Amino acid sequence: MEHAPLYERRPLFIYNSLTRTRERFAAINPPHLGMYVCGPTVYSDPHLGHARTAIAFDIVFRYLRFLGYRVRYVRNITDVGHLEDERADAGEDKIAKRARLEQVEPMEVVQRYTLSYHDGVRRCGCLPPSIEPRATGHIIEQIQVVEKILEAGLAYEEDGSIYFDLERYVQSEGTGDSPYGKLSGRVFEDLIANTRDTAGSEEKRNPLDFALWKRAEPGHLMHWSSPWGEGFPGWHLECTTMSTRYLGETFDIHGGGLDLQFPHHEAEIAQNHAAFGSDPARYWMHSNMLTVDGQKMAKSLGNFITLEEMFTGRHERLERAFDPMVLRFFTLQSHYRSTIDFSNDALEAAEKGYERLMAGLSRAEELLAMTGITGEGAVSTEPVTPLEESSLATLSDIEREAEEQVAATWEAMSDDFHTPRAIAALFELGRITAREEWRTVSDRSRVRAAQCYRDFAREVLGLAPTERDTDGSGGATGAAAELTEGLVSTLLTLRAEARAAKDFARADAIRDRLTELGIQIEDSRDGTSSWSVSR
Amino acid sequence: MEHAPLYERRPLFIYNSLTRTRERFAAINPPHLGMYVCGPTVYSDPHLGHARTAIAFDIVFRYLRFLGYRVRYVRNITDVGHLEDERADAGEDKIAKRARLEQVEPMEVVQRYTLSYHDGVRRCGCLPPSIEPRATGHIIEQIQVVEKILEAGLAYEEDGSIYFDLERYVQSEGTGDSPYGKLSGRVFEDLIANTRDTAGSEEKRNPLDFALWKRAEPGHLMHWSSPWGEGFPGWHLECTTMSTRYLGETFDIHGGGLDLQFPHHEAEIAQNHAAFGSDPARYWMHSNMLTVDGQKMAKSLGNFITLEEMFTGRHERLERAFDPMVLRFFTLQSHYRSTIDFSNDALEAAEKGYERLMAGLSRAEELLAMTGITGEGAVSTEPVTPLEESSLATLSDIEREAEEQVAATWEAMSDDFHTPRAIAALFELGRITAREEWRTVSDRSRVRAAQCYRDFAREVLGLAPTERDTDGSGGATGAAAELTEGLVSTLLTLRAEARAAKDFARADAIRDRLTELGIQIEDSRDGTSSWSVSR
Repeated sequence: MEHAPLYERRPLFIYNSLTRTRERFAAINPPHLGMYVCGPTVYSDPHLGHARTAIAFDIVFRYLRFLGYRVRYVRNITDVGHLEDERADAGEDKIAKRARLEQVEPMEVVQRYTLSYHDGVRRCGCLPPSIEPRATGHIIEQIQVVEKILEAGLAYEEDGSIYFDLERYVQSEGTGDSPYGKLSGRVFEDLIANTRDTAGSEEKRNPLDFALWKRAEPGHLMHWSSPWGEGFPGWHLECTTMSTRYLGETFDIHGGGLDLQFPHHEAEIAQNHAAFGSDPARYWMHSNMLTVDGQKMAKSLGNFITLEEMFTGRHERLERAFDPMVLRFFTLQSHYRSTIDFSNDALEAAEKGYERLMAGLSRAEELLAMTGITGEGAVSTEPVTPLEESSLATLSDIEREAEEQVAATWEAMSDDFHTPRAIAALFELGRITAREEWRTVSDRSRVRAAQCYRDFAREVLGLAPTERDTDGSGGATGAAAELTEGLVSTLLTLRAEARAAKDFARADAIRDRLTELGIQIEDSRDGTSSWSVSR
Repeated sequence: MEHAPLYERRPLFIYNSLTRTRERFAAINPPHLGMYVCGPTVYSDPHLGHARTAIAFDIVFRYLRFLGYRVRYVRNITDVGHLEDERADAGEDKIAKRARLEQVEPMEVVQRYTLSYHDGVRRCGCLPPSIEPRATGHIIEQIQVVEKILEAGLAYEEDGSIYFDLERYVQSEGTGDSPYGKLSGRVFEDLIANTRDTAGSEEKRNPLDFALWKRAEPGHLMHWSSPWGEGFPGWHLECTTMSTRYLGETFDIHGGGLDLQFPHHEAEIAQNHAAFGSDPARYWMHSNMLTVDGQKMAKSLGNFITLEEMFTGRHERLERAFDPMVLRFFTLQSHYRSTIDFSNDALEAAEKGYERLMAGLSRAEELLAMTGITGEGAVSTEPVTPLEESSLATLSDIEREAEEQVAATWEAMSDDFHTPRAIAALFELGRITAREEWRTVSDRSRVRAAQCYRDFAREVLGLAPTERDTDGSGGATGAAAELTEGLVSTLLTLRAEARAAKDFARADAIRDRLTELGIQIEDSRDGTSSWSVSR
């Protein structure tokens, strides 16, 4: 049993949006696991919403890998076909519009904002996905999927555009367990009753029908030849095409932001059934939305914050800059299915929490670095898992308390990736191991606690010490920060000695010099001093 | 005249590989300028050769922008079609082979090594190109180019593969000023005489013919449907297709490593003529090769060094790690058309040079930050250009000496991007402005020298203080390094005071504490101390 893969020993529960229940997860073809997540349309700088979705699924990716799965994580880049009016399949292509405004070629827009997205989410600690396919990289494959849907009689051509015939699809058999509307909790008949014809949908038999392929109007910048003339793919189609191409016709997990549940994901399910006769994914996961100071984030409300603005503090709603890792920690303090509200106070509180967690991480890593690699206290090459009941019996009270938190961390992450509870358990573990009594425990317990702390904080939650001076504010890297710490404390010691010797001139000179260097000193009543970098 | 764009006032000379002469550059459609550079085949980690080519054309990109051109810089990613045996159009696809060995999907290989290439060249100070098209993103467009060449009667089909008919092309008219072989200095008849049939070329009418489209054999992983069946594009074709797509049928500059001159670039010229009836580019530029310890870099010789190995020092040929900026500086110390030889000694010497240049940059930037923005000493928003003869007459001797170096820097860069001479001129400028006499010069001269130094060092050469702690060696960011500097020098001052007061216990305690923190102190005979971080 000890040699079974971790994912067999640690049951994982996922809230499946499709069934609206918390299900015990089972991979289709373990240890392989396929996950597709809808990525950004790259026409503007990444903002808090992008970060939230990316972080949510980065956690899923990391934990699945931690459990021993070989995860193929596919996240697309939408670089064509996303029109301004998504519902009506009308309006300008979002990327082409930005290209027109910036007087550049659409692919320059794609390049600029793909790089800025990559940079933003990388700084937030997100690992790159295994494959990052682009819509323009899969035009032939998209045309082939349209052909399949046409062959199935579930789409129709109208003047060079191809639309998905939703009514026919709904009436047809073969939608299996996932009839149209199941994912988003909508009833097709109600949708029909509540939908009016909108501009751009004149060609559609039914206003709910959506474009699989659109004819390119004169002046449209991005277009390709197809059996139906020059045109471009519909936005929903790329995800069906690329998820199938890299993960197969049914794969394990499909994720995305909650705003994509309808109509985008509903359309993906319909397209997959029409083209391949199967559900695209077994588990659907949706990360929730965010608000800023209690309101929906919107350009018109002046509370729309890009990642760059967050990291530099250059936004009128922000009192100062916040580190990408603080943003990550803040995000993880809520469960991915809850909404989160950004505010200066909340971010400042998160910063304190993040620093506390990092202090614990640093203590844990110091301990693990000190410990030898043999004997009782050996650092395991495998993650530390909760102890059996029988082993718990032999432990002291405080060791048992620590083990409870080890178990709680696992439980939290296996309960639909409950990061806030995992963080709380790590904090509790930190408190327990900081107690006087902890000095008496066995090497084994000491190492187990440290390893659990390190693995979950660093590997699973992806929280690490601030990577670098990202904003020119004088923040330092790990090693440099340590050096600064050492140098300042040496100077403070010398100052304390000077004061003790009543050499106030020297004491003041040291203080002045530190002030010049931007270091603020706070003297407390008990004679100790603390300090901070003021810029 | 003062208001004409800089590129009209500062003539630029480029060595054109096609004509083998140094030509005065003229853009086709100024201020717009199109440049295409052959990028990597992303099947392994980036190495010194990748860095050299990327840095060479980053300099071209930066200087053209500096001159006021609006440059569209296109550098492709080859993610399909590059076969192991390039000449015979045979063997496995390089990416597919790596995918087979790593047991992953080819696009996972593409993703991993694209990211590692991006990261490597970014750390070397290279700006991202404006557009980074991928071969798999332009399959339809490539098929269209093949169709054009077939229509022109300059290609033939053989069992689902399409080959370029080189003999017919050579005999045809319409190759204009660029007959086949002109770029690489080869004569078609000699090539024919010296070529034997090789494996995989049985289908070709002539062994020099090259594949435009290859039929996919069973088991071939990456293939697309085409008018000739399932297959994939030939390696040479993607560059013709993507350069035309984003820059037009004839654009300004085509660049690449010298190893691509034949047959790759020769094939591009032929394809462009066959499909569009025009030369692809007006100026062809080739960056030269490199050696390691005097030998060609090759896996079999054990001197093949990746960027990661260079930056971490983890290679048996390297005595220690070298910073990406040191690598960049080292590369720029040679002209892009010269070969360069990597060795520990040469890199160490480059490191000293780089540090000296950065010290000068830091002094220049301090001065520019101090100077007000009005009056004689105003910092210009435009680059500082050489003074007219008449203005030179009014200057003091030392001012004139400095102005000579300003002019020399410009001359060097305008003489086919002669970076070693530009660096030498900046060093000379630094020496002049460090002289006692320089204190007497006008604000205007002072600011001009500083601005020239800063603009060329930072903007044109792309040399900046080390970005961050890249190797965990305790190196620090700019602001953090400054803080460390300040703290250490304060401690050294306190130590000197303690020694002066014969308080040797305190002096030694300070020294011991610094040693503990990893700071080595060297006392010189004149009583001053220097220091370095030992880890």
